[in-house]
Amino acid sequence: MDTIDRKEIVDNVLYLIDAKDEPALKNLVIDFHPADLAEILQDLEDEERAYLFSLMTAETASEVMTELDEVTREDIVSDLETARLSEIVDEMDSDDAADVVAELPQDIQVEVLAHIEPQDRAEVEKLLVHEEDSAGGIMALEYIAVYDDQTVQDAVREIRRRADEIDEVFYIYAIDRSGRLVGVVPLKSLFLRNPQQIIRDIMYKEVISVSTEMDQEQVAKIVRKYNLSAVPVVDRNQRLIGRITIDDIIDVLHEEANEDIQRMAGISDEEVLQDTSTFRISRNRLPWLLISFFGELGSALVLNRFNATLEEILISAFFIPVIMATGGNSGIQSSTIVVRSLAMNEAGATGLWNRVYRELRVAILNGLIVGALLFAVIFFWKHNMEFGIVGGLAIILVMINSAAFGAIVPFALHKFKIDPAIATGPFITTANDIFGLLIYLGMTSVYLASGR
Amino acid sequence: MDTIDRKEIVDNVLYLIDAKDEPALKNLVIDFHPADLAEILQDLEDEERAYLFSLMTAETASEVMTELDEVTREDIVSDLETARLSEIVDEMDSDDAADVVAELPQDIQVEVLAHIEPQDRAEVEKLLVHEEDSAGGIMALEYIAVYDDQTVQDAVREIRRRADEIDEVFYIYAIDRSGRLVGVVPLKSLFLRNPQQIIRDIMYKEVISVSTEMDQEQVAKIVRKYNLSAVPVVDRNQRLIGRITIDDIIDVLHEEANEDIQRMAGISDEEVLQDTSTFRISRNRLPWLLISFFGELGSALVLNRFNATLEEILISAFFIPVIMATGGNSGIQSSTIVVRSLAMNEAGATGLWNRVYRELRVAILNGLIVGALLFAVIFFWKHNMEFGIVGGLAIILVMINSAAFGAIVPFALHKFKIDPAIATGPFITTANDIFGLLIYLGMTSVYLASGR
Repeated sequence: MDTIDRKEIVDNVLYLIDAKDEPALKNLVIDFHPADLAEILQDLEDEERAYLFSLMTAETASEVMTELDEVTREDIVSDLETARLSEIVDEMDSDDAADVVAELPQDIQVEVLAHIEPQDRAEVEKLLVHEEDSAGGIMALEYIAVYDDQTVQDAVREIRRRADEIDEVFYIYAIDRSGRLVGVVPLKSLFLRNPQQIIRDIMYKEVISVSTEMDQEQVAKIVRKYNLSAVPVVDRNQRLIGRITIDDIIDVLHEEANEDIQRMAGISDEEVLQDTSTFRISRNRLPWLLISFFGELGSALVLNRFNATLEEILISAFFIPVIMATGGNSGIQSSTIVVRSLAMNEAGATGLWNRVYRELRVAILNGLIVGALLFAVIFFWKHNMEFGIVGGLAIILVMINSAAFGAIVPFALHKFKIDPAIATGPFITTANDIFGLLIYLGMTSVYLASGR
Repeated sequence: MDTIDRKEIVDNVLYLIDAKDEPALKNLVIDFHPADLAEILQDLEDEERAYLFSLMTAETASEVMTELDEVTREDIVSDLETARLSEIVDEMDSDDAADVVAELPQDIQVEVLAHIEPQDRAEVEKLLVHEEDSAGGIMALEYIAVYDDQTVQDAVREIRRRADEIDEVFYIYAIDRSGRLVGVVPLKSLFLRNPQQIIRDIMYKEVISVSTEMDQEQVAKIVRKYNLSAVPVVDRNQRLIGRITIDDIIDVLHEEANEDIQRMAGISDEEVLQDTSTFRISRNRLPWLLISFFGELGSALVLNRFNATLEEILISAFFIPVIMATGGNSGIQSSTIVVRSLAMNEAGATGLWNRVYRELRVAILNGLIVGALLFAVIFFWKHNMEFGIVGGLAIILVMINSAAFGAIVPFALHKFKIDPAIATGPFITTANDIFGLLIYLGMTSVYLASGR
């Protein structure tokens, strides 16, 4: 469904809701993919949304709900009766069920857990223990495992037994008699082997796994690096307790990229794109605005300090914005590249100084070009060669300073375990503005003093 | 391998290379995963890298090569003899082989194609036709298809026949006798069915596919939305011609996120993080620096125009940086959110005006808070209540203006099919700086005029 289709479909749905044409709407719910239904719900207003959702079977509703964005999901869930909500949660995979239950208010959580099947309840409770952003928090309990001394035939039997419950099966995990993960068998291999063969003899023994406490970003890196389609999760004793499938990893990658990008723009927590609460959004953005605000008041102090200079040679004031902005951009380019390198684990063993040195080389080259241009502008516009030299040199120095700062700060933050992405936003811009002003106005006053 | 391990391992490898301990190095090559070997190679210098690479079998070398970043891969490939390179390419999956061959200079490309097996050559040539960033450009020809009137047993036979050649099999595609894609069967289902059952009777008929010309970003969106593990590629007549696996989609998502983030920072083409060429990097970054440079010269013109104001009331100059920077940040927050919404296709049917309205609400709220603060600063520091009101009002207006501009520009660019991500970088900052100055100095001179 692209954007244009989507508008048409939503208009059509609105028309059918208005006409209270239940049979047509029920057909539509059957025809569309749950992911499409989720998009349609996101585009509807509260009342229409609740109505359309009420026409779905518990199974469809459960699939749609896992596709919804957080804000819409919370809206829908808060309007549901406990009995209906329990029915829907019962249909979900353990990881999705745990996600939904975790977001419920305490009292409703207890009620829903009391209403779902005992086995599902046990599973959800097992998953709720883990941190939301850890491997344990995103894993599901739907996986197929056999003992390594069982046969290919046993594995096939196990697949048949659990086929209903588990949608996607890519690998069979092999465990020893104490539950420790010892191997993995791609589903494909089962077709190539004799039914009597022992799993231990056909499994890959170097199985890549993650531990429950591992951060989801780290899990995503491993899955990406080793091109896995699913990764098993083990506890501290190497016992197999869950698996994470690639579609969840894709969501993690998306979430993390979003978070990084938003943080770079000075937005504290991830802002849900469908959120409409002015206060929630404001609270999320204000801190960085204030940091930049108070930081830039430092610029006012600098300007105050150079009061005399400004008055004497007003020409210098004209070029404050261009020097600060160009320096700032040079700093943001450097810090963005360094932040990405750190995020993608690609700073490598060569590390900090190589990276800083590289950024300095680029800043010097670009600084020389921009500096020459600024000299030309001042010379031809203001007919002042001496001040042209001061301005040209200043912009070069400011750009080099910003680039060095932009390259070093993310490494420092990374070292202290602070997300380096915050360094590319208002923080680095503010710092570079103040340094830039000091350099520029400092050079201007030295020039004035020498001229007297 | 985390960063610390990696440094230790690289040091160890360097020691072994220095000692020319070939047996130990060959063991190491066997022990490590190709993805780990690729990381090690990336950390070595040219000569050591070539040496370590030469110790790998063609099979290992082919796996390692597909894991390398572009810059390192080009380095290694340019040093290889054609015979060895052909041997390595021969071992690759069709999509990886086509990627490597596509990057070769024309003459070597011809030579390598002449050296590889005729069937592989035909496959690579078939893939080279497609645009690099299209579904055709990232698809592989390794997939399993059966006719829809064949049986489950036939499908199993086909899997066995091609198991060697195809690493990951998740789905069997069903085609009709003219080659059109008509269904899909998850591998798991084959275990649940009677060997004599006809594929047509057990396949899912609503199979989601993509066309060869579809942009890879669009493909990634579809795979993500529908939680697919692989997606079949069809030509204009719905004939099945390839498949794209999820690991390639993850690379696309990564590439696109990187591209977006870099573009937001004013970097034209994707900058490869391992690139060390100062000139190439400079060329990539300079355009946006120049746009910001010449744009900000507009600020100089604005200041020139308000010359009198500045001289008369130097106090206004002090607060130029804080007003410009805070307004700029407000604009970047808004444009970042809008750009992400567009990139993730989440602006939805509600669209432009809802989004702009939302951004305006937030800007007004945050503007009021920051404006009150600026008033307080000017009042208590400069003891000038009237100018405090001017400054406070100015920062509110500047923030609202920047937020509106930041929200509208990405939509406009999107409409004209220009990547909205460029709007979040130097472009929007520069525009907002100029508008901001005009608003602030305009208000200052009205205030001065009224006071006279």
